[in-house]
Amino acid sequence: MRLLRACGVFFRLSLFFRAGAMVLHLVPRCSARLLWASPGWRRTYTQGTSVGQKWLGCPRDTYRPLACRGRSSVSGSPEVMLTPERYPVQRLPFSTVSEEDLAAFERIIPGRVITDPEQLEACNVDWLRALRGCSKVLLRPQTSEEVSQILRHCHKRNLAVNPQGGNTGMVGGSVPVFDEVILSTALMNQVISFHDVSGILVCQAGCVLEELSHYVQERDFIMPLDLGAKGSCHIGGNVATNAGGLRFLRYGSLRGTVLGLEVVLADGTILNCLTSLRKDNTGYDLKQLFIGSEGTLGIITAVSILCPPRPKAVNVAFLGCPGFTEVLQTFSTCKGMLGEILSAFEFMDSECMQLVGQHLHLTNPVQESPFYVLVETSGSCAGHDAEKLTNVLEKVLNSGLVSDGTMATDQRKVQMLWALRERITEALSRDGYVFKYDISLPVERLYDLVIDLRTRLGPRAKHVVGYGHLGDGNLHLNVTAEAFSQELLTALEPYVYAWTAEQRGSVSAEHGLGFKKKNVLGYSKPPVAVKLMQQLKALLDPKGILNPYKTLPAQA
Amino acid sequence: MRLLRACGVFFRLSLFFRAGAMVLHLVPRCSARLLWASPGWRRTYTQGTSVGQKWLGCPRDTYRPLACRGRSSVSGSPEVMLTPERYPVQRLPFSTVSEEDLAAFERIIPGRVITDPEQLEACNVDWLRALRGCSKVLLRPQTSEEVSQILRHCHKRNLAVNPQGGNTGMVGGSVPVFDEVILSTALMNQVISFHDVSGILVCQAGCVLEELSHYVQERDFIMPLDLGAKGSCHIGGNVATNAGGLRFLRYGSLRGTVLGLEVVLADGTILNCLTSLRKDNTGYDLKQLFIGSEGTLGIITAVSILCPPRPKAVNVAFLGCPGFTEVLQTFSTCKGMLGEILSAFEFMDSECMQLVGQHLHLTNPVQESPFYVLVETSGSCAGHDAEKLTNVLEKVLNSGLVSDGTMATDQRKVQMLWALRERITEALSRDGYVFKYDISLPVERLYDLVIDLRTRLGPRAKHVVGYGHLGDGNLHLNVTAEAFSQELLTALEPYVYAWTAEQRGSVSAEHGLGFKKKNVLGYSKPPVAVKLMQQLKALLDPKGILNPYKTLPAQA
Repeated sequence: MRLLRACGVFFRLSLFFRAGAMVLHLVPRCSARLLWASPGWRRTYTQGTSVGQKWLGCPRDTYRPLACRGRSSVSGSPEVMLTPERYPVQRLPFSTVSEEDLAAFERIIPGRVITDPEQLEACNVDWLRALRGCSKVLLRPQTSEEVSQILRHCHKRNLAVNPQGGNTGMVGGSVPVFDEVILSTALMNQVISFHDVSGILVCQAGCVLEELSHYVQERDFIMPLDLGAKGSCHIGGNVATNAGGLRFLRYGSLRGTVLGLEVVLADGTILNCLTSLRKDNTGYDLKQLFIGSEGTLGIITAVSILCPPRPKAVNVAFLGCPGFTEVLQTFSTCKGMLGEILSAFEFMDSECMQLVGQHLHLTNPVQESPFYVLVETSGSCAGHDAEKLTNVLEKVLNSGLVSDGTMATDQRKVQMLWALRERITEALSRDGYVFKYDISLPVERLYDLVIDLRTRLGPRAKHVVGYGHLGDGNLHLNVTAEAFSQELLTALEPYVYAWTAEQRGSVSAEHGLGFKKKNVLGYSKPPVAVKLMQQLKALLDPKGILNPYKTLPAQA
Repeated sequence: MRLLRACGVFFRLSLFFRAGAMVLHLVPRCSARLLWASPGWRRTYTQGTSVGQKWLGCPRDTYRPLACRGRSSVSGSPEVMLTPERYPVQRLPFSTVSEEDLAAFERIIPGRVITDPEQLEACNVDWLRALRGCSKVLLRPQTSEEVSQILRHCHKRNLAVNPQGGNTGMVGGSVPVFDEVILSTALMNQVISFHDVSGILVCQAGCVLEELSHYVQERDFIMPLDLGAKGSCHIGGNVATNAGGLRFLRYGSLRGTVLGLEVVLADGTILNCLTSLRKDNTGYDLKQLFIGSEGTLGIITAVSILCPPRPKAVNVAFLGCPGFTEVLQTFSTCKGMLGEILSAFEFMDSECMQLVGQHLHLTNPVQESPFYVLVETSGSCAGHDAEKLTNVLEKVLNSGLVSDGTMATDQRKVQMLWALRERITEALSRDGYVFKYDISLPVERLYDLVIDLRTRLGPRAKHVVGYGHLGDGNLHLNVTAEAFSQELLTALEPYVYAWTAEQRGSVSAEHGLGFKKKNVLGYSKPPVAVKLMQQLKALLDPKGILNPYKTLPAQA
């Protein structure tokens, strides 16, 4: 029997412990501090806002996404190639921004037309540093009416527009490919209303998810979505990309929780569907067109969203499993025994743990295992939830599904365990060039692709790792290398997409298609569907000025 | 202190009772039987299937919706006026079904082309008996391929088509207005697959909701929606109308739970988006176009839907409240204290109770009150759920929010209490001609309209009642009269719609617009939105053959 190191780090642990039944390894205080010793990108971000304040004079400025990611410097990124140099893409015959255009923008949003090259650099490069546009102008409207006037001008002048939220996208949807006008939602960051009985929040599109999260938590609600980039990403961008994230298992898709949207169409028309009703069956649900359309059909300017009540108790268990079969069985056990309080079931493999240790100095709180799972419960009664989770842990430990585990109930410790999972992306980005895949698969086949790829790639890859939202059948498959390699890319694509298609999976579970994945749409959607999407694009944006080169493959 | 009649009807009642703290009136056995003495429409429906079996030779035939509703006879409904005689509507220049068309249909679906007038009558009349079309042909395909061939023919020939599921709609969306070809999904009633780990069900569109419910319950799951018409309605119709119903509060909208659809477009093209993935962000989410479009953009032929695990414990409390303010406060208390196990919060006023007593001989299980609420919990641990609910009931009784209450935990008693709420629609239909309104309002104003209308209508109305899904802000407002009266209609409309619009509510929360409400769309949606809907209709159905005269107002 393994040793229980009861050092008081985890609050109310006694509740969860039954003599002889389960073995919990606790993180001692020193390790706990280590977990936070390396500043996370969210933290760094918050510190970075002062820079924005300086040069734009906006107190809630949430700009400079690259700075937010812990990179040493925003200025000068010579190592990021221009997108058209790496990818075969031709500029479409849009107009080029002229002095007259700049003057027109200046009349619409005085003082908020940015043309300084250094300031533009951060908006031209995606945070993965794989893509770089060459936009010459960044516009920072504060109201829907300003967005409308800008689009009316761009539409008339045939100027392409790249809408940008927190620039945290994974597929290059949020940066220009050529010289598109960048329209940032960063200054559209006001809460419009909050109803404290229904939990319905109405806010502008540029509100940062984490700030909204704090806002509603103070009122005893939570946001229905949560993701690693919360410190930078904008709610408008979340909706435009139909972000999934960590609470999807419990609170479902934004397609259910978003109640209304205000959208500015390509020609500047304002479409106001910003209702705050849980039910509304009057005609077609137009807002759905814009959820997940990545800014290609309209620019979301405001969002009405249903926030769930804040759970009174949150528990997190971090467990080591001897194999992927055991991970799946642990998931089934949790689903059955935790029922309505199960709020997350995440998994990561041992290579992920190795990377967060190596690059971020996070400590593995349990004994080394081939797989790790993070189980979160959120409920309305601490005692009931603890009892349910105890029963589960007792069962999975006794049956050998889990070899070791640790638990937390208080907020700080819960965050420490979550950091192990949430910061994998950051660790990967420090490991070298990252080939990222975000796929949906039948849960029982979820890890097979990782194993398959390790064999296929051999020493050409530095690391092949798998982690993700197991409860949603969503695998984040990442391959790292010292640098971008065409050979590795050729070995990966279209192999990964064809493999996924064979399982009737999705080649983009939650990241969207953006620029990088638009040509693989056909692996998950039939030609009839792709054609209809193109017809919708032509209907809503006949000149194609909204976020061009993204989401849909170029028409033959 | 009121008397506790402990007669053993309610299982495990002792769990819920604390001496002196709460007073529960129990339904004695004799009353319990009375609750079921009057055969419900769902029951009658099941008996009625033999008729269908006889004349179509199909073992799972789910036809004859009128018979399902407890009406005396299907044949001959001279009292239902032809729709164009009551409403100002002009036939559009579609072709008329010819002998050649019938021969073509017969080649596509041999033996399933129905032209017998008596058999057609049931499909021409809506179940509220307010509308009557004069279609001359009913088609009963069994496969998507057959639907595709039928639509290809109709599209070429410019024949209008009325898709029909269980014909249980409230707004006349499911019956022809003139002589549209009726395309019934009744024989498309096969389950295609069920995944017993994920709970994902894939089935044809004509599966009856209640039958699916039984199917998944046997596998320890439940359907994410439930509604009074479950014994007749088809899942395809549920999706096409974006049905809400009784589980909406807990499991949310079909927009979140429907994972994939197969749809046949107006020209016969099959659009296969029938995936079974929880997450899929590859391009625009086309299925959302068809959810809630009432068959005007395409005909849904198959559905992939996520079923939640079957709760291990279900409790229902039926409570009497002294006023609407107390109803609202009881709701807040339940939300706060029941949290994740609250699965329904329904309300009805005293006139509703009077009508279910008078017409259906159901017994009020608690003392007479101005309002009644039904609270349902569904959870994974009977003991925990009981404790939570006990605490709530103790609080609401002690604080005077509730004056009397009764509870049930076993399935049969739970159904008895639910019948009081679910059968209000049936009781109303027996009370005379019913003017029905289904609106979303801010919850605090939900009942004001009922009070307002009673004053406004005075003795012209037989009854003005309010009930509905309080937890979703959804009021079912019904006005009964001895017969249809233009004077009463003029007093009601547009008054009700304008009142709703003033509160920024929805003039159709869950019933859709269909034929009856299509012209009031403008009360809940701005002209820009209506125009975009019309553009979508023109894109997907340029000849306008799919369910014409429905959902959208005629273009100027």
